[in-house]
Amino acid sequence: PTSRLPQVGTTIFTVMSALAQECGALNLSQGFPDFALPSALTDAVAHHVRAGHNQYAPMAGVVTLREAIATKVLASYGAKVDAGNEVTVTSGATEALFCAIQAIVQPGDEVIVFDPCYDSYEPAVTLAGGQVVHVPLAAPAFCPDWAQVSAVIGPRTRAIILNTPHNPTGSVWSAQDMQQLQQRVRDTNIFLISDEVYEHIVFDGCRHESVLRYPELAARAFVVSSFGKTFHATGWKVGYCIAPSALSAEFRKIHQYVTFSTATPMQFALADFLSACPQHWQTLPAFYQAKRDRFCSLLDGSRFSVKPSSGTYFQLLEYSSISHEHDVALASRLTREAGIASIPVSVFYRQAPSDLRLLRFCFAKDDATLDAAAAILQTL
Amino acid sequence: PTSRLPQVGTTIFTVMSALAQECGALNLSQGFPDFALPSALTDAVAHHVRAGHNQYAPMAGVVTLREAIATKVLASYGAKVDAGNEVTVTSGATEALFCAIQAIVQPGDEVIVFDPCYDSYEPAVTLAGGQVVHVPLAAPAFCPDWAQVSAVIGPRTRAIILNTPHNPTGSVWSAQDMQQLQQRVRDTNIFLISDEVYEHIVFDGCRHESVLRYPELAARAFVVSSFGKTFHATGWKVGYCIAPSALSAEFRKIHQYVTFSTATPMQFALADFLSACPQHWQTLPAFYQAKRDRFCSLLDGSRFSVKPSSGTYFQLLEYSSISHEHDVALASRLTREAGIASIPVSVFYRQAPSDLRLLRFCFAKDDATLDAAAAILQTL
Ligand SMILES: CSCCC(=O)C(=O)O
Ligand SMILES: CSCCC(=O)C(=O)O
Repeated sequence: PTSRLPQVGTTIFTVMSALAQECGALNLSQGFPDFALPSALTDAVAHHVRAGHNQYAPMAGVVTLREAIATKVLASYGAKVDAGNEVTVTSGATEALFCAIQAIVQPGDEVIVFDPCYDSYEPAVTLAGGQVVHVPLAAPAFCPDWAQVSAVIGPRTRAIILNTPHNPTGSVWSAQDMQQLQQRVRDTNIFLISDEVYEHIVFDGCRHESVLRYPELAARAFVVSSFGKTFHATGWKVGYCIAPSALSAEFRKIHQYVTFSTATPMQFALADFLSACPQHWQTLPAFYQAKRDRFCSLLDGSRFSVKPSSGTYFQLLEYSSISHEHDVALASRLTREAGIASIPVSVFYRQAPSDLRLLRFCFAKDDATLDAAAAILQTL
Repeated sequence: PTSRLPQVGTTIFTVMSALAQECGALNLSQGFPDFALPSALTDAVAHHVRAGHNQYAPMAGVVTLREAIATKVLASYGAKVDAGNEVTVTSGATEALFCAIQAIVQPGDEVIVFDPCYDSYEPAVTLAGGQVVHVPLAAPAFCPDWAQVSAVIGPRTRAIILNTPHNPTGSVWSAQDMQQLQQRVRDTNIFLISDEVYEHIVFDGCRHESVLRYPELAARAFVVSSFGKTFHATGWKVGYCIAPSALSAEFRKIHQYVTFSTATPMQFALADFLSACPQHWQTLPAFYQAKRDRFCSLLDGSRFSVKPSSGTYFQLLEYSSISHEHDVALASRLTREAGIASIPVSVFYRQAPSDLRLLRFCFAKDDATLDAAAAILQTL
């Protein structure tokens, strides 16, 4: 057939994880933990499948899970959201992002994204008939240039997709960024899609600037998060979208025909865990900061240049002292020859800077894995 | 926002299940079993969550599950499919249908559906920028009128969506229907999307006419099925799509950005179960035929007119001797006043016949539920 997505190949995450497996390489490419979940969570799934929670969940999500999400959002950001009409549970954040985009983007609309950006945004906009407008984030800080944002906003701008903490760079937006954003969208009809899947993974005492902290922003936003990231269960595919009820209504019109619902036993298990351990995610910053620090320290004296990540479970490594290869070629070669898989960063740009020499490594790994990875990287 | 789906409200399945719950009514509306799964399946999930299968599954699905699907398809239909390139595991059949539609429908394309049809088809086509062309199936047999199909096929016809065994009517296509279909699409570029989620639920010794039995059809088809239906686990959200590799490649381009993957422990559990109990689904026809027969017999002497279903776990009841109400009004009234929820059939038509007096009841229920339901229906 004539492709709906002629520019699109297989997502880099699949390519690199498959290559890692084929080569028996350490897989620090696709972002997922290699350590165990809290046993209370796995026990809860075992309980709920045996207790018979195996049929369709409500389309918007299991009620107790939506209530637990509302409680968590209030505790985290002081935001009151209505579990009935403003929270929708999805098959991972990917589905939430897809449905939010489908809900608001019409043919001819423009959607602003910040490059490097997660690879699902643009295809979702394309399928909705929209056009993506790319605003680059400049290395090494990868902070938005608000003058550039002003320059690209126009009458066709339907939405801005933001992502903080930022994948793949590990940068986080500041309160100033949020104020800048607020100024840009005030008195416009621009919607926001806020990808906050790493909301609980921020370092060095910095605060996650959730859109939910800013009522003026939240009033026009779809805020997307993921239990996969927060509870180390990327394979459970439970995410959610928080949006004002009019936006949630449009979101649900799409969601009901995209997946309808996501795995019921996982939803019950997460609801149990959130009420039994309501503070669990507050342990994440220290937990992942220790992993980041371990990984970065182990690279001391290596030929990589390391600017520690401010959030997410990803660390960029700059490799210009090692090689001038293109990052895609290098990531592939390191997987095959050095036995370590990473993600090249250029694939997240429409047009990557020609001097970009960055690979992304996932440090959501057991210490032993990080040690083995660093040992390899030290030899390069 | 301006709605992408202005004609669409909340899916009837959510509306009726919520009303049933609110009223404490017996819920024979949305299609799901109220009995236990095979314990080997729930034990397998408990095992795999504890064994640490909790991170992203491969985008196309867990390999052993795809192989088990290929084995099942060979055993069921004599069709050889390549587990690597032609099978993709999805978050339920709903996601598979959505992705297949997104993969091939371009703005301006027409897609033929048979009314009454499942409510997700048209919104998915609309979101892709296509137009649905409705061919009605005539009561009481609900078989396609092939002359009408010929009449609506034109240069803009991109695809035909078929569904056998048919939800909501319980009719099944014959080998003659498949030959007619084959004649209609021969020498065209028309794709087929074949919704076969009730493939293993056919009665009275009749044979399911899978598109996979017809190589000429299969070469242009996305065949969609669902473990939710086959293994009584609608809430696990594991479905799949079988398509030739070029079509599967386009399908996966969409799937990778819609959900990426579906729950890993469920995929492993289903793979285990399929290899441990490779004949399980062959027990389904007798199992569900007994339920159909029980339900229909219990309605002997009632004022409903009953033509036993040929497949699926749904039974239509004609109610013109009881009421001349619109089916939507009656379904709602019976839920509130009689304590039994069903699905009105008119909502599955673009334009329902004005004399349509049909409600759909799900008989995937414990015998006690069926007995209680019939007892209520006998009083009407
Ligand atoms: C859906 S696979 C991608 C996982 C992820 O978020 C990442 O590696 O960036
Ligand atoms: C996704 S909810 C609908 C379940 C179903 O297939 C039906 O009731 O027809």
